[in-house]
Amino acid sequence: MMRCAIVGYGFLGRALVKSLRESYGGRVKVTCIANSRGTLFKEGGVDLNQLPAELSEAVGFREVSPIDYLDKRWVDVLVELTPTNVIDGRPGIDYIRAAMRAGLDVVTANKGPLALAFDELMREAEDKGVLLRYEATVGGGIPVFTLHRYYLKSDKLISIRGILNGTSNYILTRMHFEGMPMDLALEEARMLGIAERDSKLDTEGIDTAIKSVILANSLLQAKKRLSDVKITGINSITLDAIHAAKEMGMTIKLMGLVEDGKISVEPRLIRLNHPLCVHGTLNAIDIIAENLGSLTLIGHGAGKSTVTALLSDLNDIARLKYID
Amino acid sequence: MMRCAIVGYGFLGRALVKSLRESYGGRVKVTCIANSRGTLFKEGGVDLNQLPAELSEAVGFREVSPIDYLDKRWVDVLVELTPTNVIDGRPGIDYIRAAMRAGLDVVTANKGPLALAFDELMREAEDKGVLLRYEATVGGGIPVFTLHRYYLKSDKLISIRGILNGTSNYILTRMHFEGMPMDLALEEARMLGIAERDSKLDTEGIDTAIKSVILANSLLQAKKRLSDVKITGINSITLDAIHAAKEMGMTIKLMGLVEDGKISVEPRLIRLNHPLCVHGTLNAIDIIAENLGSLTLIGHGAGKSTVTALLSDLNDIARLKYID
Repeated sequence: MMRCAIVGYGFLGRALVKSLRESYGGRVKVTCIANSRGTLFKEGGVDLNQLPAELSEAVGFREVSPIDYLDKRWVDVLVELTPTNVIDGRPGIDYIRAAMRAGLDVVTANKGPLALAFDELMREAEDKGVLLRYEATVGGGIPVFTLHRYYLKSDKLISIRGILNGTSNYILTRMHFEGMPMDLALEEARMLGIAERDSKLDTEGIDTAIKSVILANSLLQAKKRLSDVKITGINSITLDAIHAAKEMGMTIKLMGLVEDGKISVEPRLIRLNHPLCVHGTLNAIDIIAENLGSLTLIGHGAGKSTVTALLSDLNDIARLKYID
Repeated sequence: MMRCAIVGYGFLGRALVKSLRESYGGRVKVTCIANSRGTLFKEGGVDLNQLPAELSEAVGFREVSPIDYLDKRWVDVLVELTPTNVIDGRPGIDYIRAAMRAGLDVVTANKGPLALAFDELMREAEDKGVLLRYEATVGGGIPVFTLHRYYLKSDKLISIRGILNGTSNYILTRMHFEGMPMDLALEEARMLGIAERDSKLDTEGIDTAIKSVILANSLLQAKKRLSDVKITGINSITLDAIHAAKEMGMTIKLMGLVEDGKISVEPRLIRLNHPLCVHGTLNAIDIIAENLGSLTLIGHGAGKSTVTALLSDLNDIARLKYID
């Protein structure tokens, strides 16, 4: 029995709780759930079936930080799901570090801490003898880190290319297929809940850069930071440019590129029948390795599919640490 | 140090030996290599750098079966690479069973034994406490079984669809893009070494059916046999039909389908911009799961990429059994 603390209780936290309730009754116990307003802690395990829609309405909810509960007496694994912050990684990075110092394993869906301090966090995990898993951080429903751990290490990786941002891919897709101007496509994406109100991180390529840094550091030991990435977003792409690409059987996609020890984010021409050329909000990651040649993974970048990544990370920890 | 016997020494055996020579010097020792003519056995390990182009010219090669060497005194893992036989699975199935009876773990690239006796072989492996790994059997460079073991088990699988046969996909691709008649495309595939002289297993859908049975049994515990599959090949697909599909932004692909407890192989209409719609000799597998939605894997179905699958299976066995 593995005891979890879930810190961050938005869409993903709720979706995870739903899956844990349905499928993991006997194997995972949630002793702590926290959001930005406070913490619900039950030493014997929170009854996930009795959880109200608003966490703060749960009996026992207190307006305190979860940090004191990240303790081996009550918790084995922190599931860290707070919002991404690419300036200083807070509050996620503080929770992750506190948990690892206390000897807890960590599963996170939070890109910020990993983009800012990948090597430091991995070293801290190793020093403490704990596991830090982050399958959900890049291409939520694309198991690229699991594949690396259990498959790609049997080959020599050469390069990684990815369409990693759903919002900008949705916009480019509408421009290509419907000839819709960029600002209208962005407005539509906002109305559909695909884009945030502030979508600059998406359209300016920052989100793609964050994910490319995590990919490069994890798969190619690149020891890079966000500031090492040359970033060009999609704002200067015109309908004319996309139309010209279309005439050649191609289109333009925003790509994260890791090759020759460099990371860049830029709009690139790509053949429409190339495996990496996915549309709508889909994400795709193409890995080139020496024996393998090209392996392309296509899936959803966000939403419920990310739950599979979190559960898989939890199961990986259970397999490695709690063999019964 | 893991001691391997390689049985079957064609293209794949040679490519594996090349990779073992270059990258696995200290961790894997090959004590036995055999082809259909005989066996080279060296208790201290075959010097892979001194291996002549023709195995039978190696010093120590003897015209005997490798079966007596599949013994724990000299070998830990059998790497079984003999040609596929879908009638009775021989000789591969005999080597696999002999090895497992002797307590050896097994890695195989051979579809025949698994398509004919998946459940029996898995049960025999479990009874003997050995591992039987087969990542190379379906979509050589697509790690679908590894993904299942280490990721997809965290979700509930609903269906599997795959473009699993390079030869028929090459033919359909040439028909679609060049308007080439099927017999010419097949002739071209033969000249390029993509198709065998006898390509009936490919064009009649048998190869796709074999792979679909292995996928269904492995990922969905379907307990099916080749005789349970409804199979339609590509022979009746006309240029007119493909042209009509093209007019609608679609094409026709030969697919293996596992859904609702049934396995079928048939030509299907598919949108050209669907992730599963890959061209040339590429293979693709699309998995639908409850939380994940759709995850598509695209890679090479054969050739050198299969070496990564074999090495990954060997590494998986090493990780699970020979932790040092």
